[in-house]
Amino acid sequence: MSDKPTFAELLQRSRTPLPASTKTWLQGQRFPALRVPQRRISLTNGEQVCVYDASGPYTDPAVDIDVRRGLPAPRAAWVAARGDTETYQGRCIALQDDGLREASQQQALRAGTDALQRQPRRAVSGRNVSQMHYARRGIITAEMEFVAIRENQRLEWMREYEQDTEREMRLRGDSRGASIPALITPEFVRDEIARGRAIIPANINHPELEPMAIGRNFLVKVNANIGNSALGSSIEEEVEKLVWATRWGADTVMDLSTGKNIHTTRDWILRNASVPIGTVPIYQALEKVGGVAEELNWAIFRDTLIEQAEQGVDYFTIHAGLRLAHVPLTARRRTGIVSRGGSIMAKWCIAHHRENFLLTHFEEICEIMQAYDISFSLGDGLRPGSLADANDEAQFAELRTLGELTKVARKHEVQTMVEGPGHVPMHLIQANMDEQLKHCDEAPFYTLGPLTTDIAPGYDHITSGIGAALIGWFGCAMLCYVTPKEHLGLPDRDDVKQGLMAYRIAAHAADLAKGHPGARARDDALSKARFEFRWEDQFNLALDPDTARAFHDETLPKDSAKLAHFCSMCGPKFCSMKITQEVREYSQSIARSTVEGMAQKSAEFRAQGSKLYIPITVSASA
Amino acid sequence: MSDKPTFAELLQRSRTPLPASTKTWLQGQRFPALRVPQRRISLTNGEQVCVYDASGPYTDPAVDIDVRRGLPAPRAAWVAARGDTETYQGRCIALQDDGLREASQQQALRAGTDALQRQPRRAVSGRNVSQMHYARRGIITAEMEFVAIRENQRLEWMREYEQDTEREMRLRGDSRGASIPALITPEFVRDEIARGRAIIPANINHPELEPMAIGRNFLVKVNANIGNSALGSSIEEEVEKLVWATRWGADTVMDLSTGKNIHTTRDWILRNASVPIGTVPIYQALEKVGGVAEELNWAIFRDTLIEQAEQGVDYFTIHAGLRLAHVPLTARRRTGIVSRGGSIMAKWCIAHHRENFLLTHFEEICEIMQAYDISFSLGDGLRPGSLADANDEAQFAELRTLGELTKVARKHEVQTMVEGPGHVPMHLIQANMDEQLKHCDEAPFYTLGPLTTDIAPGYDHITSGIGAALIGWFGCAMLCYVTPKEHLGLPDRDDVKQGLMAYRIAAHAADLAKGHPGARARDDALSKARFEFRWEDQFNLALDPDTARAFHDETLPKDSAKLAHFCSMCGPKFCSMKITQEVREYSQSIARSTVEGMAQKSAEFRAQGSKLYIPITVSASA
Repeated sequence: MSDKPTFAELLQRSRTPLPASTKTWLQGQRFPALRVPQRRISLTNGEQVCVYDASGPYTDPAVDIDVRRGLPAPRAAWVAARGDTETYQGRCIALQDDGLREASQQQALRAGTDALQRQPRRAVSGRNVSQMHYARRGIITAEMEFVAIRENQRLEWMREYEQDTEREMRLRGDSRGASIPALITPEFVRDEIARGRAIIPANINHPELEPMAIGRNFLVKVNANIGNSALGSSIEEEVEKLVWATRWGADTVMDLSTGKNIHTTRDWILRNASVPIGTVPIYQALEKVGGVAEELNWAIFRDTLIEQAEQGVDYFTIHAGLRLAHVPLTARRRTGIVSRGGSIMAKWCIAHHRENFLLTHFEEICEIMQAYDISFSLGDGLRPGSLADANDEAQFAELRTLGELTKVARKHEVQTMVEGPGHVPMHLIQANMDEQLKHCDEAPFYTLGPLTTDIAPGYDHITSGIGAALIGWFGCAMLCYVTPKEHLGLPDRDDVKQGLMAYRIAAHAADLAKGHPGARARDDALSKARFEFRWEDQFNLALDPDTARAFHDETLPKDSAKLAHFCSMCGPKFCSMKITQEVREYSQSIARSTVEGMAQKSAEFRAQGSKLYIPITVSASA
Repeated sequence: MSDKPTFAELLQRSRTPLPASTKTWLQGQRFPALRVPQRRISLTNGEQVCVYDASGPYTDPAVDIDVRRGLPAPRAAWVAARGDTETYQGRCIALQDDGLREASQQQALRAGTDALQRQPRRAVSGRNVSQMHYARRGIITAEMEFVAIRENQRLEWMREYEQDTEREMRLRGDSRGASIPALITPEFVRDEIARGRAIIPANINHPELEPMAIGRNFLVKVNANIGNSALGSSIEEEVEKLVWATRWGADTVMDLSTGKNIHTTRDWILRNASVPIGTVPIYQALEKVGGVAEELNWAIFRDTLIEQAEQGVDYFTIHAGLRLAHVPLTARRRTGIVSRGGSIMAKWCIAHHRENFLLTHFEEICEIMQAYDISFSLGDGLRPGSLADANDEAQFAELRTLGELTKVARKHEVQTMVEGPGHVPMHLIQANMDEQLKHCDEAPFYTLGPLTTDIAPGYDHITSGIGAALIGWFGCAMLCYVTPKEHLGLPDRDDVKQGLMAYRIAAHAADLAKGHPGARARDDALSKARFEFRWEDQFNLALDPDTARAFHDETLPKDSAKLAHFCSMCGPKFCSMKITQEVREYSQSIARSTVEGMAQKSAEFRAQGSKLYIPITVSASA
């Protein structure tokens, strides 16, 4: 392993801008200081294509980044300007926060990292600082304008394409009940948040954040999970995975660490994250009680929420919907309870013969969330772990409880999304979306896949990419990625990328199908480049320019081939795209030279209408 | 490249049976000599799972295979027994059949390979030997019984699962208008073929074939394309790709060779293929006229059909639906005509200002097809090459013509399927299937993907796997795979496997959704193994056991880990599946020890019905 790249080398790779790409910024109108990032791809024909950019300051060569100092914090000023928060002396960091027992261990580790922790901020007593709270009062925040600009940015570029009315009509999306406007305004963002149909996960203690929205009327988002476990990976590796994941399009990242150093790992991740960070606080709470689920209690859990709130976690997965009464419903399942959080809470409920303490303390949790603007991700502890358990009573009973909890959270003006499955055959996916929209009143749905078959371990980014594309089209707001290692092992760097590629494809396919304004621009630009044999542009417009180029070079490595009017599929003499171009030229030359040219023939042909489909005349002669 | 494995080494790898797998055979009842293959996977708990096996004699260690002699020919006896065919002196092999001009070149090549060619057979004058012809006369052929047994084989094994009525009701497929019986009988196969709703591609000159069915009421099939091109690969490489492709589940293989040695390559492929082989004869015809589309004519094309018919090609892609009048409809497209066959015919039509000669000679083509039982695959020369062109008038005008041609072919009792796109956003896929079913009267649909976005070259097995799964569910009978190299280069061995994995997933996800009887068995077996921590069984039941095992070993390489009741995702203390098992045991122990145990609570809970969803009571205390 001596040739394993160092952290610094890996980070440098993750920071190199993608080919032909420059980071540019759009300015706010209400908030002129806003710098909304986008990636501008310069094409060889002089055109430029701008695409959504989740990669943060890392891909800006002008920014000097030191992961031990953390990223710049532009959002700190926005939060402070609202005047409804205060800094305070946060809770004391305890040994057990990092799952440690011996002081020496901890001190050694923390010596170089403590500086990352910022002084925490919270709402002034009695105030609610959630985006939902502002939205319901008609206030448009900087975060809302940021998001509106970010969702819209391809519109200018689409104008060219919109001139073809026939094509626009033909390709118009099927929104499946979503209400996506042609232009996303700050007012629209505000109204969606007020209504609970979208969230902007944005803890006031996460000033490094570039805000983004999750909701069925916005672009479908993708989450990537990272996190060490008892068996794996170092803190630096996790930070590098974060940067790598956002490079390849992770809109949010969940830190699912379960081993030692949970607290410190999270510090590093948050201070270096420009995307929202989610966690499952029960994982850390369980570490604090030595891994014994029965010993969990509200005090430990509450303390963990405060700890993570002060660090800046943007959304919490809370498994409050799993009720004691639901547990027996899982007894006849093929694969029981597969959610980690779900199985912990089920074990707790049964051990104590009591209702889930996350449920009984739900309103207190809401009060904590309000004070930091942390969003709920209501966990589906009873999601199916196999097709055989899809859409069963255990799953849907919990979903209905999540719907009730959504209403409680909204009463407290806490932003809320709802988690979903899991493993679901294609024909049962629509019912998942229908039930969720109905019971959770259009709160954003956030699903894991779903996997559409259980028979392909090693390829579950594909089995689940199919389900993810479908449910994204049907209205799911965020897709939690699945890597090829799912069910088999810990994802490495390449697995993270493979998972993200599959999910960026799924999310984009969903955006196209539901008709998100401007989503088609990149497809059109790439297809045009393909048709015109602009190989470089085809690579650079691709989701993964490196792989596209490498695959092309395997067969035709010479630079001259990238200018060639053919590809390796058919060779120089036989390229169908080349022939088509000849057909067009031929056709045009005829039209120019004859009165009864092809243009006329075409017009006649169109005028004939139904006469076109006359029975075919076939000759009997050879 | 000195360590590149030899052909013999590669073939040996492709021949090694998959782990824990044995090839077994089911016998016919009407035709006791039939040996219908299946792969039996032996599990560590003593159970056995049988799965569909397209790999042919290669994975049977008892068969001595020499690719220079070709495979055994069990089907020769079935064809001969029908007494309606005759052997004859086939057409003379010409230099140009292999695209060669100099005799020396050809002789050198053919010296070692000529022996592969069998003496051709054709229908006795005036007879039609198509499966459709027999079916319409009420005859059940050996091919039909073979197919019925093959489609049914998991039924015995499903009985256990069917006992759970609640689960059966919940998971019941949504057939979207298909008529899939619980048991597939030879009579059902016959009736589907008679009606034109299914085909068995089976040229009488392909006696090495193990028959398979393509139709919306059967398992969704997958085709893999191979073939050399002007820039690529040798004959041996193509044979090895064929064996490799069937190992990973290709149900049919298309030989799309376009370079030199087309004839000889096809000889080798056919004599070594137990799956149906399809071709696009216009590719070879074009080679014969030096690549100049305008010089194509009916005589050359007819001669090519006979040449390939005598070799044993099972289905021909014929681009007869592209009419002169359709060509101008493509002028405003983003990507014009991208089908190779389509662009050749378009060029020919315009150059001569005449109707497509494949259309004007269509009935003569039918007469040739009848005499060998070659199936039509009516080519979609105007399929869209980008989302922007999906479902446009050019595409659908051609589809309607294909519908008319389907009726002409049926009049001649020639088995017929219809090709489809291509590049289609998700929300426009259903219309493709609807139009095809309507205009082609349920003739099997055979689509290339479709790709659901254009932005991911390098990952088009995934962009198209999504579309393939959807259209398979909606009624598409066969999915033509797309490899990661699509649009970029020639697929190598690994690309072929990656393409097949994505498409086996898509086809299986479609079978589950449409409710093919028994399709769920393998998912259930694998999920059960997963839940019971039978790691070896989980690997061996996977579509790709090698990759599943390798991924697991990356994190936990020791053999002992394969018996461990945890996995690398969470580590020993934190496995949700482990916790679930504890929850179950705990729950059972309570039920045993208390009168008011969990079983009772569960019963009460069920009896409560709607009372379950009473408003949540939340405590205000910490």
